[in-house]
Amino acid sequence: MNRSRDAQQLDRLFHALADDSRRRMIDRLSEGPASVSELARPLAMALPSVVKHLAVLESGGIVLSQKDGRVRTYRLAPDALARAEAWVGERKARWNAHFDALERYLLDTADEDMP
Amino acid sequence: MNRSRDAQQLDRLFHALADDSRRRMIDRLSEGPASVSELARPLAMALPSVVKHLAVLESGGIVLSQKDGRVRTYRLAPDALARAEAWVGERKARWNAHFDALERYLLDTADEDMP
Repeated sequence: MNRSRDAQQLDRLFHALADDSRRRMIDRLSEGPASVSELARPLAMALPSVVKHLAVLESGGIVLSQKDGRVRTYRLAPDALARAEAWVGERKARWNAHFDALERYLLDTADEDMP
Repeated sequence: MNRSRDAQQLDRLFHALADDSRRRMIDRLSEGPASVSELARPLAMALPSVVKHLAVLESGGIVLSQKDGRVRTYRLAPDALARAEAWVGERKARWNAHFDALERYLLDTADEDMP
């Protein structure tokens, strides 16, 4: 394996987003911190499944957890989706630059064809 | 299973992005269409593995393929990453609205404390 830490982090981030229940947990946590049972309720999901999904979200750098006494509370990481946004944004900027270059080329060619 | 088609499509899209080799294929295809062997070369990967990765990218709506004679050519789908961008963008807008409301609340409270 010759993959950088960055690449592995992106793998885990996008993997964490690739599940509807996990995306719904993200939306719930965007309203404020929550315990495992609070996160389980609207999903009608057993607690051990919720705990597994939360571990995937934590490994992806999207949520953070903290234990207060016997209750573990989850919250969104600061800039939880910033890396996903940056990755997509970089590609979009690059593609737009390609299209701009193509457009300029086509306009220049059209100018040359003018009488 | 009670998931919408939209949710399943997002699952496949983010799953397709959750692998470094697949992300490198996206970057290669952003420079123009390519055959399986052209995509395999820089990755030093066996053709059957490349074909599997391309199937995942195609299922995620990121690439399209076309068969010309015996050669199958792959290219990026139009707006390949638009759904990923939209999903992240919606969340970001919602979170910013939350923070703006919080900021207004804090400013209002500060005003009230003024002599």
